[in-house]
Amino acid sequence: MEEIKIFAPATVANLSCGFDVLGCCLQNVGDEMLLKKNDLNQLRITKITGADLPMEIHKNVAGVAVLALLDRLGSKQGFDIEIDKKIRSGSGIGSSAASSAGAVYAVNKLLDDPFTNNELIEFAMQGELLASGNAHADNVAPALLGGFSLVRSYDPLEILGLPAPSEIRMVVLHPMIEIKTRDSRSIIKQNVTLASAIAQWGNLGAFVSALYTNDYKLMGRSLHDAIVEPVRSILIPYFDELKKLALDNGALGFGISGSGPSVFAMCQGDSAAEEVKAGYLNFLQDKEVGFELHVSEINKTGIRIL
Amino acid sequence: MEEIKIFAPATVANLSCGFDVLGCCLQNVGDEMLLKKNDLNQLRITKITGADLPMEIHKNVAGVAVLALLDRLGSKQGFDIEIDKKIRSGSGIGSSAASSAGAVYAVNKLLDDPFTNNELIEFAMQGELLASGNAHADNVAPALLGGFSLVRSYDPLEILGLPAPSEIRMVVLHPMIEIKTRDSRSIIKQNVTLASAIAQWGNLGAFVSALYTNDYKLMGRSLHDAIVEPVRSILIPYFDELKKLALDNGALGFGISGSGPSVFAMCQGDSAAEEVKAGYLNFLQDKEVGFELHVSEINKTGIRIL
Repeated sequence: MEEIKIFAPATVANLSCGFDVLGCCLQNVGDEMLLKKNDLNQLRITKITGADLPMEIHKNVAGVAVLALLDRLGSKQGFDIEIDKKIRSGSGIGSSAASSAGAVYAVNKLLDDPFTNNELIEFAMQGELLASGNAHADNVAPALLGGFSLVRSYDPLEILGLPAPSEIRMVVLHPMIEIKTRDSRSIIKQNVTLASAIAQWGNLGAFVSALYTNDYKLMGRSLHDAIVEPVRSILIPYFDELKKLALDNGALGFGISGSGPSVFAMCQGDSAAEEVKAGYLNFLQDKEVGFELHVSEINKTGIRIL
Repeated sequence: MEEIKIFAPATVANLSCGFDVLGCCLQNVGDEMLLKKNDLNQLRITKITGADLPMEIHKNVAGVAVLALLDRLGSKQGFDIEIDKKIRSGSGIGSSAASSAGAVYAVNKLLDDPFTNNELIEFAMQGELLASGNAHADNVAPALLGGFSLVRSYDPLEILGLPAPSEIRMVVLHPMIEIKTRDSRSIIKQNVTLASAIAQWGNLGAFVSALYTNDYKLMGRSLHDAIVEPVRSILIPYFDELKKLALDNGALGFGISGSGPSVFAMCQGDSAAEEVKAGYLNFLQDKEVGFELHVSEINKTGIRIL
């Protein structure tokens, strides 16, 4: 295979109770990427549409992720990378993760799969390190694996795939302000009370259990975050109003997507999701902030070949 | 029914990754209790064997737990309680929980089940509050429900039952020193680093997943505790040696049972458990500290009528 075109999906990380360890993959929101082998022994970003991002390999998340992969293989193979960004940078739904995970996925395919998708995660994390100063895996893992992913451990890296109950719908609202993950991380306190940590791990354990038992109400009750949300939500316009609106309109739970400013409402079924969406549209019609709205199932397979 | 005799099992709480939220129930270690209705409108502890514990209702964990239940019902029914303690006080395997959970279970049966076992947990927690100064549920819940229990939330109280993979064997070693839960709690830091909290909730999420998938190796890898174990293990004689010995002899994981001094080794199957036990016996034969050893399956039903 000399070239490959892929769809690299958006992802929702943290999911309230799983800061830095939990994420899920969206179905119909994502970038497209075209990768071709070249004979120049050189890795190049040849085209980026839809966003103003660096073309230099060492400054581009897809570039550094692929370099990490090629380094591990000791390969000199060259590639040309074209990226059609549809996920907005700084939106909080895994824009950098889609590029870095997509790039390593495509290169791995063009090299006849020397790595499993799970093994690709650590290369894609190099893109996250460049983008945010932190090599977190909770976006790149669900982008590569699909469904829900859990980071059991960062050292050594161990990622689990979790079940994705079929009725889950994610209503993702992106208020049109940009928050850099790097900045959004810097406001988080590096010490937390033991009491809030206990509450957090009780909820995460319960959320994982609910994924196995298809207990949608329990998923909703578990979507709580007493640690990061109180700090980050300050940066998000109308956060409290949107949360109340989503829950009043039947959402199972509501929280910040990744580092924001996007917020997610988890719903059971299409009609519940449509109600939440309609409530948002009604609320936002006279507000000055622009926004994008996505309604998506959970993408069970992750990145796919087009 | 005028009287009832029950077996109130020992429990292992915390289980490394689940401080204050996770516990499991043991099969063949526990107290026996005999409860009879009396016509005196009076709650009495009439006999305690096997331990030197207060007979006064307000100072006895079984007494305060039953009082909480009767208060909720507005009942004046009197009961005589006899307790044959076989779980040593201060051993770290839920001695106080067995008494308080056992007492409310028995009283509930004698009153024709006004409450579910799950509803009994909050009454039994009053016994834990008396014993340790903290109304934790991670021993009383598995004693009442059997199997593994997870506290999703303390406020409001919500407890989940989790699957109990049938090959799990718990090798519980009780070094004969006494650590009061109250004292053992007081040395824990009330603030933790966000990094260690993230590691903890990653492991707890993975442990819950492993219970659903019967992934014994993953259970073992998830039994880590970077928060409480480093502090509490200092109080436990030969902790590091016992941990290494258990893991070298094939245990899936090892940690402190509750607030200690008991330690548990989780093993897959009988022969693995016997190897760990033999290793302990060999190691401890020339040591000065006395000890008790229990090997148990997970008790899937909790308290039972004898």
